[in-house]
Amino acid sequence: MAKDKSKKQFRPKPRLPRGFRDIGGAELERQQQMITTLAAVYRLHGFMPLDSAAFEYADALGKFLPDDDRPNEGVFSLQDDDEQWLSLRYDLTAPLARYVAEHYDSLPKPFRRYQWGHVWRNEKSGPGRYRQFLQMDADTVGAANMAADAEICMLAVRCMEAVGLSKGAYQIRVNNRKIMDGLLQVIGLSPDDENYEQRRLTILRAMDKYDRLGAAGVEALLGAGRKDESGDFTKGAELTDAQIAPIARLVAIPDDDRTATLAAMAELVGGNESGKNGLAELAEMDELFTGLGFGAEQICIAPPVVRGLGYYTGPIFEIELGFEVEDENGKAVPFGSVGGGGRYDDLIKRFKGVEVPATGISIGISRLAAALELRDGAKMGANSPPVIVLVMDKQDRPDLLELVQTLQKEGIAAEMYMGDSAMKAQLRYADNRGAWLALIIGEDERKANVITIKDLRLGQEKAATIQDNKEWRASAHAQQQIPRADIVGRIKEILGS
Amino acid sequence: MAKDKSKKQFRPKPRLPRGFRDIGGAELERQQQMITTLAAVYRLHGFMPLDSAAFEYADALGKFLPDDDRPNEGVFSLQDDDEQWLSLRYDLTAPLARYVAEHYDSLPKPFRRYQWGHVWRNEKSGPGRYRQFLQMDADTVGAANMAADAEICMLAVRCMEAVGLSKGAYQIRVNNRKIMDGLLQVIGLSPDDENYEQRRLTILRAMDKYDRLGAAGVEALLGAGRKDESGDFTKGAELTDAQIAPIARLVAIPDDDRTATLAAMAELVGGNESGKNGLAELAEMDELFTGLGFGAEQICIAPPVVRGLGYYTGPIFEIELGFEVEDENGKAVPFGSVGGGGRYDDLIKRFKGVEVPATGISIGISRLAAALELRDGAKMGANSPPVIVLVMDKQDRPDLLELVQTLQKEGIAAEMYMGDSAMKAQLRYADNRGAWLALIIGEDERKANVITIKDLRLGQEKAATIQDNKEWRASAHAQQQIPRADIVGRIKEILGS
Repeated sequence: MAKDKSKKQFRPKPRLPRGFRDIGGAELERQQQMITTLAAVYRLHGFMPLDSAAFEYADALGKFLPDDDRPNEGVFSLQDDDEQWLSLRYDLTAPLARYVAEHYDSLPKPFRRYQWGHVWRNEKSGPGRYRQFLQMDADTVGAANMAADAEICMLAVRCMEAVGLSKGAYQIRVNNRKIMDGLLQVIGLSPDDENYEQRRLTILRAMDKYDRLGAAGVEALLGAGRKDESGDFTKGAELTDAQIAPIARLVAIPDDDRTATLAAMAELVGGNESGKNGLAELAEMDELFTGLGFGAEQICIAPPVVRGLGYYTGPIFEIELGFEVEDENGKAVPFGSVGGGGRYDDLIKRFKGVEVPATGISIGISRLAAALELRDGAKMGANSPPVIVLVMDKQDRPDLLELVQTLQKEGIAAEMYMGDSAMKAQLRYADNRGAWLALIIGEDERKANVITIKDLRLGQEKAATIQDNKEWRASAHAQQQIPRADIVGRIKEILGS
Repeated sequence: MAKDKSKKQFRPKPRLPRGFRDIGGAELERQQQMITTLAAVYRLHGFMPLDSAAFEYADALGKFLPDDDRPNEGVFSLQDDDEQWLSLRYDLTAPLARYVAEHYDSLPKPFRRYQWGHVWRNEKSGPGRYRQFLQMDADTVGAANMAADAEICMLAVRCMEAVGLSKGAYQIRVNNRKIMDGLLQVIGLSPDDENYEQRRLTILRAMDKYDRLGAAGVEALLGAGRKDESGDFTKGAELTDAQIAPIARLVAIPDDDRTATLAAMAELVGGNESGKNGLAELAEMDELFTGLGFGAEQICIAPPVVRGLGYYTGPIFEIELGFEVEDENGKAVPFGSVGGGGRYDDLIKRFKGVEVPATGISIGISRLAAALELRDGAKMGANSPPVIVLVMDKQDRPDLLELVQTLQKEGIAAEMYMGDSAMKAQLRYADNRGAWLALIIGEDERKANVITIKDLRLGQEKAATIQDNKEWRASAHAQQQIPRADIVGRIKEILGS
């Protein structure tokens, strides 16, 4: 094509779509180490890896069915060449349900898999809230009994311990959807009521806010509604005072003793069938926790836990980190949830027509990594930057690359400066890379068959305390000349010290 | 919402969209091990990790600009709420260009990063050809000199060695776009010709087919066109015989001696400026390869190498595996390319207006993993399945889970059977999982404080040679009773043996 030089060249602006981000450096290494660590824990517990495709048919994902007018409600969807709607997965559970339904006959039952990967949500983004994030799940499909749910909770404890959190820093908070459904029946609501699903959701959301808003806030949200500090009004569930009272009592039950919590919940639920079933399930799990030595500071029964997703049918779990961080107003608040899960006995039924019981947990990798960074700083994931070999004369490149290769063969990360700039820019480059050591072979070094090692960290430390130019010159022992034959040993000494 | 029971429930079919697949088991573990291995090589060479978002603005990705009529040409695209077009990345290079342009001032220069992740192509799928696959890239941005390109090729050698390929099994094949552009000028084509870009592409594609179709095939495709075995006709570049001759001679130049290859190419290119530049660049790289001891069996100069992507401006590289596999017709053919790359000095200029030189390589992880599996079978990535603890009596679950926990604390992957089925189904489950050992604590074992270890692999081996029922019963030492206190030690003995 002949070029029309008169036409102004189109120059796109280099920027990411809103709600997306690039991750690099220590944060990314921390995430990858975390994935490796958790994968080992999952595997130790007998879960095997699976990686499903990012795309699913929209109807297979369920929950959000896109239509032509508003195809992007909650999920990212597009139409394939054959007019069928594809959606990017919004979690790893719905694709698992599709996978199990598709391969049901050939899978071992129970089927136990772990998976980690990105998920996408077409939602409003905000600070710390992205439209793409990493999840890491473990699920047991085809086990109806509570040992499977209890195992998942204990697995969550092991995961938190494996990433370096100790007792008291995390808590697995367990509840059961059947108890809440039972209580709704107790206060006179029925699934046959008009708007039942919507009202139930409003009630669950109100309960979920107990930790943040306290009893008065929850009661307002269960009743007429609540005006927040900014003046925004949230419409309530419009329950009567008599209906509100038992729910308010439920969420206020202490969670520091599983037996006592269960007893207090039983009082509220009374003879209701669904509620009693839920309590019996929790009691069975409690027995296993206690038998295996998991105290309430590790796994508690927590009445306000509700979980957002609509597909849970029984036990639900939330992984909470208790240490405090500052919120946007500078107030100290607990870090909060880094994952959760529960039992979803109906999700595979959507495909199969028959019930396939299943339970599992999902850990938010990005969020957990962020939590650990806030708590511990950048301790994890700090891989050493390479040793930088500077280039005094371009003719030397073959020789310098050979030196680099020698270091690499000894397991020392190393690179030759690849640009074409002079010494000053090269040292700035080494600094920008956070390098510890720079190696120099100039004319003098070559004659004497030595290499100058510049210790950039020692140099910086000294620079911080140095008072004047004279002292600066005297600090030359941040730099030393080493016979070329001794270079590997000397570098190992410095890096290992 | 009141349920309308008369309405037939919609049941989606559990299936993946065409061109996508799930990966599990040994294949997935192999891929993940490969990523870990290559990441270590990249890091050893001084590249640092980056993970960019899956979505980019369509205009930032370039190459394919979606329009309303046909938004999905080659890439998966959709419109955001604000009407802007988003695309899933089709490689990791275009997002890197966007990232560097966006953060140019704050990055160390040269900027050296590695990245691995999924990329998506909205193309026809076929056997072994998917619409989502894994790439792993390393790039040096901001280095104009050939040492950067040479380093990338040597890095590719190190990567192939790190995954277990030895000399002769792989070859890095290098060429330079400037030589081909020069040769087109020599035969009388000019960038100002109408249809130059399209014709150039047709010529490059023809050259690329030299290994498969030989000289006659390439000559046909450079001329009027070629009818393949199925009778399909591919239109040619319609060059004259005089124009075809030098190109046919170029692709036929032997690649077993870099110096000789360069000399033969020089003869064809003559005094053409672009061609001479390309040859000088290759000669500079050759000097480094030779100086560092890389022979032509590791890195060769290969005139037919062209690479598909449009953004390359100088040296280009292809990673070829030479060992033979059967094609769809049962014919033995070399496995072929598992990756490649090259120099793309103009890609960042799209954003910045100034040239930012860059070079890099991309390894197709799925393809490399497939190659190694074809060659070596399932040797890599075979993580042991867990020890399965069977459940004779559901009352025992707390005790059995404690046993499982004891094993896990010793680093032995273990799980309790989580289903509710009887003994036979449990043993079938252990078999389906590929488990080596199953543990049984029945009433007798409990009384004697022992555990029965069933060696399922030994059992299978024996079953293969057993002649009759009597012999079968005598094979009971595939099963042994061990005092409970000795169980960890005994299992370690068996698994370690």
